[in-house]
Amino acid sequence: MGQPSYSAAELAERFGLELQGDGAVRVHGVGTLARAQAGQLAFLANSKYRSQLAESQASVITMRAEDATGHTGTVLVARDPYAAFARMSALFEPRPLRPAGIHASADIAADAHVDPSAHVGAFVSIGPRSRVEAGAVIGPGCVIGDDCVVGAGSELVARVTLVTRVRVGQRVTVHAGAVLGAAGFGLAMEGGMWLNVPQLGGVVIGDDCEIGANTTIDRGAIEDTVLEEDVRLDNQIQIGHNAFIGAHTAMAGCAAVAGSARIGRYCLIGGGAGVLGHLEVCDKVMVTAMSLVTHSIREPGEYSSGTPLMDNRSWRRNAARFKQLDALARRIGRGQAGKDPADPDDQSR
Amino acid sequence: MGQPSYSAAELAERFGLELQGDGAVRVHGVGTLARAQAGQLAFLANSKYRSQLAESQASVITMRAEDATGHTGTVLVARDPYAAFARMSALFEPRPLRPAGIHASADIAADAHVDPSAHVGAFVSIGPRSRVEAGAVIGPGCVIGDDCVVGAGSELVARVTLVTRVRVGQRVTVHAGAVLGAAGFGLAMEGGMWLNVPQLGGVVIGDDCEIGANTTIDRGAIEDTVLEEDVRLDNQIQIGHNAFIGAHTAMAGCAAVAGSARIGRYCLIGGGAGVLGHLEVCDKVMVTAMSLVTHSIREPGEYSSGTPLMDNRSWRRNAARFKQLDALARRIGRGQAGKDPADPDDQSR
Amino acid sequence: MGQPSYSAAELAERFGLELQGDGAVRVHGVGTLARAQAGQLAFLANSKYRSQLAESQASVITMRAEDATGHTGTVLVARDPYAAFARMSALFEPRPLRPAGIHASADIAADAHVDPSAHVGAFVSIGPRSRVEAGAVIGPGCVIGDDCVVGAGSELVARVTLVTRVRVGQRVTVHAGAVLGAAGFGLAMEGGMWLNVPQLGGVVIGDDCEIGANTTIDRGAIEDTVLEEDVRLDNQIQIGHNAFIGAHTAMAGCAAVAGSARIGRYCLIGGGAGVLGHLEVCDKVMVTAMSLVTHSIREPGEYSSGTPLMDNRSWRRNAARFKQLDALARRIGRGQAGKDPADPDDQSR
Repeated sequence: MGQPSYSAAELAERFGLELQGDGAVRVHGVGTLARAQAGQLAFLANSKYRSQLAESQASVITMRAEDATGHTGTVLVARDPYAAFARMSALFEPRPLRPAGIHASADIAADAHVDPSAHVGAFVSIGPRSRVEAGAVIGPGCVIGDDCVVGAGSELVARVTLVTRVRVGQRVTVHAGAVLGAAGFGLAMEGGMWLNVPQLGGVVIGDDCEIGANTTIDRGAIEDTVLEEDVRLDNQIQIGHNAFIGAHTAMAGCAAVAGSARIGRYCLIGGGAGVLGHLEVCDKVMVTAMSLVTHSIREPGEYSSGTPLMDNRSWRRNAARFKQLDALARRIGRGQAGKDPADPDDQSR
Repeated sequence: MGQPSYSAAELAERFGLELQGDGAVRVHGVGTLARAQAGQLAFLANSKYRSQLAESQASVITMRAEDATGHTGTVLVARDPYAAFARMSALFEPRPLRPAGIHASADIAADAHVDPSAHVGAFVSIGPRSRVEAGAVIGPGCVIGDDCVVGAGSELVARVTLVTRVRVGQRVTVHAGAVLGAAGFGLAMEGGMWLNVPQLGGVVIGDDCEIGANTTIDRGAIEDTVLEEDVRLDNQIQIGHNAFIGAHTAMAGCAAVAGSARIGRYCLIGGGAGVLGHLEVCDKVMVTAMSLVTHSIREPGEYSSGTPLMDNRSWRRNAARFKQLDALARRIGRGQAGKDPADPDDQSR
Repeated sequence: MGQPSYSAAELAERFGLELQGDGAVRVHGVGTLARAQAGQLAFLANSKYRSQLAESQASVITMRAEDATGHTGTVLVARDPYAAFARMSALFEPRPLRPAGIHASADIAADAHVDPSAHVGAFVSIGPRSRVEAGAVIGPGCVIGDDCVVGAGSELVARVTLVTRVRVGQRVTVHAGAVLGAAGFGLAMEGGMWLNVPQLGGVVIGDDCEIGANTTIDRGAIEDTVLEEDVRLDNQIQIGHNAFIGAHTAMAGCAAVAGSARIGRYCLIGGGAGVLGHLEVCDKVMVTAMSLVTHSIREPGEYSSGTPLMDNRSWRRNAARFKQLDALARRIGRGQAGKDPADPDDQSR
């Protein structure tokens, strides 16, 4: 199997980029600006790395016009070099063969429907009334329960579970180990024992979403848990039942959204951040890593909680004072005021 | 397959509820109070939503007697409407068929025992000396290693792993992707290399427990890791080796309990909260989301750590001061000592 | 199948330990010092538990010479009793049979290579150009994609996924449910939609590493994600694309390392701790549980963030003051201003 290779001129034409330099130069792979070798394509998206240009061995580099000035190598000029690089590097991505058809070992319910153009891998189970649409890929070891849909062109990479009533849109990728549609965590206490609240809803995943490895998205209690289109979830994210995530929102690894929380569009939720249940977060909110959203957010912007990292000795001293913070503030109040309005014994007024 | 349907009078009799209004009204599903349609059952558990009653299209609503006064629709009066709703809605839950018997593809050790009334799905492995008791359900893709037991009426939903020496009680549900009985994280440093400490114990899961999707519970080093009965774990929880979780304790998603920690009964551990190793937490402790339990807790009550969410600009200003907190406190302390430089009324100097 | 049993003298000789007492005493298992029974081996590593010695029923105890003084039972004297115990207890670990050979159900690509001495379990998929080396164990339900290597003597316990381009060294253990080599979370925003950045790199796992259950390690974007030798990762850890983890570093459960972070050797990362992307952490850094590393660390030592656990009422009072911390500090500063002892330009005193 030969490696694909492209000339700079071919890339310029294919991706609508302006060529600067020798268009006959060929690339057969990609590299970082600092470590690319001859025959590789690299990118310069952030001008602060411009000093690496002179040393770079990359045969072709995509960058903005202003960074290209004076550079003598072959350049593909792009308004957004990172996006241009992303599109071009897809040419070099080795893709596993996923031919249409159903592996002999797969176990598929009689009333399930698999489009003839779809791929179903080894050791896949598909339950009653579920559908796999055109061109979809169900990788090895996936389990699809009852009443699920995998939309056209979507891929469950491997060992994904759609438990029940999960409707996945088109061009969605679900990475290995993810579990969608597990029963939400609904409990009522009755006579000293927990009583399970049946989870009758499903999960709806919009078109062009991406769901990370070992991420979990529970099905709704009565209505559905919903991700709108183009939501991007990293690995090990937990989405509780009846949560709603707006279009184009991206969440980094290990973030968690509790039940019935509603997150807007174009939000960025940092790694390990949490959103409590039944809150609303408006569009275009950014939450920094490991922050906890404890109240609804009505204004776009960046939000944080937590304390800075310190050496442990300093941290211990300061953290101990955190326990005295209210008392300290009262002393400051008393001291400053001379007439603390909160102090009933204050005779100075 | 027709939908099941029940009259209000049938529900009242079956669940011991008092009927108010037209007992002939039939329901075939459930809805939320605000969005239910005709033919659906809804509930009103929290009186603050009472204003939604007038507008609700639900055919039957379960609520407390005091909320039902003056309501003209059909009501099933319950002391605990949420629990009553939970029990009734189970009637409408579509349940996958799990007939008794072993799927042809399953790989079962010669000396394993599967009760004839149990269901074993496709691509299931069951190892030597393991037992699956009466009525248990082993969903597709599960792996049960050596010397495990799945008790009567328990279900491993799909792609669950019981690694070794895992004894699951009766009526337990283990959701997809969970891993019980992996070797605990036991290490000794020897000559600059880590040495594995063999993990010879097992895991014991009491009756009526629920284990969430992709949750992990390690087996013990010498003795067992133990969950007493009716412990409820949400998704992506991590329980370290030799931890002990008391009966009826519930933990929300992404919480973690380190090795040899001991948690009491009827505790509520919030999402993403952590409990350090070798600590003891007494009964009836509530830990709020993303708090870290760094010392044993001897008194029931609610416990927290962390800081409030703020806009990032404010947070940065305040967080920077956290690093000075001890110094600030010392200055206050010095100041207060009779000659507070911050006190304009201080005449002592 | 009889239990193995060893005399104290045999153990002393085999592990190079000094025998004190009756060498003919036999043990057939292990126990904790406090709860061991006759016929069991226990250890005393921490002198603070020395008071348990007199009551212990263990037939043989390994401990340091200074703790053994005056103890009348059978002792195996060790410089490092915990390590000695770890080595000896491996004798009593029941190990599942993993005979050489490929299970009849396994689905193996024509151009994959499995060493004849390796074990491949039920329902395993192995993709094109992948290799399983001598003595390796691929447990049931594992999925190995294209272009992967599992080195000699390594074990994928069960339901592990190596997605693509994952090269696992020798004597590595990967626990159930782990996913290595999923596409890293690389996104570019283009015209209001997310564009996937292809992840062309792989994952390299050094010799003697251990990867916990349901842990995820993404493959690199251009270059590889790397774990050097003897890295020990607990369960549910997330390692982002192009992260680099130095040899002998250990990370506790639920820790997370974002993309392109570089962690040194012999680091200890606490449970639930996070490391932001593109940071560098030098050798021998310890990060306490649930701390967030927000800047590079250049000095070995212990680092922390967060606040102490408090009862919720106190916490609320203090946490509310955190939002006023900068204002409070300014008041202290102002109060002092006029006579700020820290201000060298202050002429007022």
